[in-house]
Amino acid sequence: MRALETCLYVDDLDRAEAFYSEVLGLTLYAKAAGRHLFYRLEGSMLLLFNPAASALPGEVPSHAGKPGGHACLSIPREETDAWQARLERHGLEVTRYAWGSRGESLYFKDPAGNVLELAPGSIWGLGPT
Amino acid sequence: MRALETCLYVDDLDRAEAFYSEVLGLTLYAKAAGRHLFYRLEGSMLLLFNPAASALPGEVPSHAGKPGGHACLSIPREETDAWQARLERHGLEVTRYAWGSRGESLYFKDPAGNVLELAPGSIWGLGPT
Repeated sequence: MRALETCLYVDDLDRAEAFYSEVLGLTLYAKAAGRHLFYRLEGSMLLLFNPAASALPGEVPSHAGKPGGHACLSIPREETDAWQARLERHGLEVTRYAWGSRGESLYFKDPAGNVLELAPGSIWGLGPT
Repeated sequence: MRALETCLYVDDLDRAEAFYSEVLGLTLYAKAAGRHLFYRLEGSMLLLFNPAASALPGEVPSHAGKPGGHACLSIPREETDAWQARLERHGLEVTRYAWGSRGESLYFKDPAGNVLELAPGSIWGLGPT
């Protein structure tokens, strides 16, 4: 099995859209005002939900995690410096952590307080794609 | 970018391990008693955290989502019936939902109350692998 949907919860969808589209440069796939933003990743989806809306009964089962979660997206290892610079240009506080010789992670927060990480697959012994 | 780490929060790691290892049949990659279970997926990781532990300061930034989140793992479309039967044999209540002609999702809860989904990549217009 592979991860098909990775979900985070955000309390302000407009701020989230600005962040995920412009700072991270992800591709918006679909949005529903007040409820969600769906982003297309490579081979899977990143779903951002307003927990007040995703908790309401609907056609599919409701769910309501909370902001403050964590997700990691892959970057090419050689782009770690460039990503750190880009994030810092956007005013983000970045924590850089080295996993021995396996690569480095960049940690920062989205506007809702989720802890995001950018890292190469090599930190988990996984290939670049 | 692809999803490298998909995270959920669980309040009982032992129950979570039994569920994710035996019911879902995932491959345990690492565990730290009281803190986390890390599962290997195809090309990425599924990380299950005890939020009381992941919220503590450590070498990497702390985070503490809550149980009640959502994630979807991919299954081959032709295995939808077999997975529903397997989940129901384990006593789970399964909600099956058809996305038009794109495939069907199976929704059920893990022991911590996270809403899990098994679905083929075709529900998002994504290939089987």
